[in-house]
Amino acid sequence: MGLDGIRFAPVILAGGSGTRFWPRSRRARAKQVLALDGEDTMIQQTLARLLPVSEAADVWIVTNRWLADTISEQMPTVRADHILCEPIARNTAPACALTAFLLEKSEPDTVIGIFPSDHVVANIGRFAKVIEAGIRVAASGAKIVVLGIPPTRPETGYGYIEQGQGVVLEGEEGISAFRVKRFREKPDRHTAERFVNAGNFAWNGGIFLWSARTLADAIREHMPDMAPILEKIAAAHGTADFDRVFAEEYPQCESISIDYAVLEPRSAKGERRSEIYCLPADFGWNDLGSWASLHEHLGDHEDANVVDGPTDGIVAIQSKGNYVYAPGKMVALLGVDGLVVVETEDALLITTRERSQDVSKVVRQVHEGLGREDLI
Amino acid sequence: MGLDGIRFAPVILAGGSGTRFWPRSRRARAKQVLALDGEDTMIQQTLARLLPVSEAADVWIVTNRWLADTISEQMPTVRADHILCEPIARNTAPACALTAFLLEKSEPDTVIGIFPSDHVVANIGRFAKVIEAGIRVAASGAKIVVLGIPPTRPETGYGYIEQGQGVVLEGEEGISAFRVKRFREKPDRHTAERFVNAGNFAWNGGIFLWSARTLADAIREHMPDMAPILEKIAAAHGTADFDRVFAEEYPQCESISIDYAVLEPRSAKGERRSEIYCLPADFGWNDLGSWASLHEHLGDHEDANVVDGPTDGIVAIQSKGNYVYAPGKMVALLGVDGLVVVETEDALLITTRERSQDVSKVVRQVHEGLGREDLI
Repeated sequence: MGLDGIRFAPVILAGGSGTRFWPRSRRARAKQVLALDGEDTMIQQTLARLLPVSEAADVWIVTNRWLADTISEQMPTVRADHILCEPIARNTAPACALTAFLLEKSEPDTVIGIFPSDHVVANIGRFAKVIEAGIRVAASGAKIVVLGIPPTRPETGYGYIEQGQGVVLEGEEGISAFRVKRFREKPDRHTAERFVNAGNFAWNGGIFLWSARTLADAIREHMPDMAPILEKIAAAHGTADFDRVFAEEYPQCESISIDYAVLEPRSAKGERRSEIYCLPADFGWNDLGSWASLHEHLGDHEDANVVDGPTDGIVAIQSKGNYVYAPGKMVALLGVDGLVVVETEDALLITTRERSQDVSKVVRQVHEGLGREDLI
Repeated sequence: MGLDGIRFAPVILAGGSGTRFWPRSRRARAKQVLALDGEDTMIQQTLARLLPVSEAADVWIVTNRWLADTISEQMPTVRADHILCEPIARNTAPACALTAFLLEKSEPDTVIGIFPSDHVVANIGRFAKVIEAGIRVAASGAKIVVLGIPPTRPETGYGYIEQGQGVVLEGEEGISAFRVKRFREKPDRHTAERFVNAGNFAWNGGIFLWSARTLADAIREHMPDMAPILEKIAAAHGTADFDRVFAEEYPQCESISIDYAVLEPRSAKGERRSEIYCLPADFGWNDLGSWASLHEHLGDHEDANVVDGPTDGIVAIQSKGNYVYAPGKMVALLGVDGLVVVETEDALLITTRERSQDVSKVVRQVHEGLGREDLI
């Protein structure tokens, strides 16, 4: 079952600030452009897994001024005028909406897929199958498709999708779909446990599919102040004025996530009338959101000592569950558990897996407290 | 009060294996030749604090083949023929005894002082005063002087000296002396607590004073097999045969500490007749026996984060009592306590202050388990 002439344009969001994997990641060397997992960088992997369902010429990237050059180098097959460099970060709604207005100009039925650039996927074949099914759903009327990741723990760092009534997708084998009942923002621990135990909640991993027209219309309806700004920028695309207009207009957009801007108001229409569909992201998804999740991804089990990168051997005595990155060195662990130690040419981070989600606090202190622009 | 013509020959023992401060220390770069505490290396500090009571030309050094070259470079004022390079490690008794037989040949009344080369002393003036008093005691008949370090904790890593009856040293102001009742080997925790609480126990820091004749006679009495071997080596000193004789004969000596070989049997003669005197080593002694003791030495208090060596700044968030050596790097600590992290060009050690005394286990595994001679 092919895409039957449906035009598909993947939009890769790559606006990272490079704090989660500090000191390996920096503002100009964010997670997206690092090879945290294998030889290819995260954004190269993101593109590679989209190519079975898309042409490189149809791919768009929204990034920032710190990453744009590196991304251009790493993605030579992506068109230069498809790499949009935000003059300022404005969260995901303006980024998603801008591509909708751009594509609406010429081909409003194009299905846009939104893909974060810093996730890993274990089963590429399953990923392609789910995305193809989602593209067909998004192309069939004004439907929005969101991918729901089967939760494996009561994670408080993600939003949740409450799944309602099941939907039979004609002709799609092996794909279960649900109408979305509600979007739930990041819960507290207790609520997260309730969600996971309820059985009809999925993590919102930020992967969405909609036609250019559907999203553009939704923005006009829910974000009436933002829509004309983005239409003005879209109109300038391809002209000599584009950079100036982009730089002048974009900062006026409200900084808001696409979830808050469109998805939550949309799902509030009630379950039976919801035109938001949830498809299962059951393809071994991991967002590598912290050193701890990288440890989980690379290690065979929780107690594994993971010595990442090019290493010169390891000695571990009465030590377990540590993550160490120290390129080219012999690593010796003695009586330590659950630590994260990351060494680069100019910095050494020492923390625990448990605290590694707070590395941004370190980066803030290095930046604002010590004024060390060179280490950011 | 001077030394009144007493000849004094300090013997610096420098036979370290370089395991305690691995990976900074190596077999050829043992603690003695490192500047762990300031600009001078430990052995340079050892010599410097002896010069107020001795001439450099009278200093002897007993070391091993891995350290000899470095020590020669670091100690240009010490005579080349006074640097004795053991062909094999045989603990402290043969090393001490050899210098006694060597000096007995020409000047048997010379007082020999035995000094480990890897300790630090805070109060150099007090050190000189105590050593001078000890030299005078050692010169006055067949007395052995041992320095007792006032214990500050129930340490199980040192031997203890049980002090008996006080002795008045005529003309020595501010020096309290005791006859030694017994030497006690490294105790278990409970025994160590009892010793410290008893109030008349001191740590044995391995600093001894005796005349060449006194020790040579004691070796002949207590180590009758060892004495002729060492006399043969001493007889060859200064001849072209010395290296060969040293290499052939020395390995035949029993490997035994001077404590076991001479001091314990000597003290067993009974308190009243004991000719072993204990003088107080109350000059701010620290043996820097582990990363934990270096942390204690360099930090203002137990909870201090010590970032040692040339650094590029530190950020510490909810972290305390850590020791980090990572030259030239920004060090970031997040939610970690009591760790020891040491980075060199080729190795990274991660342990805790509590476990840092077991670093030799790591070194053994690197050496014997992985066969990495290059890292030893």
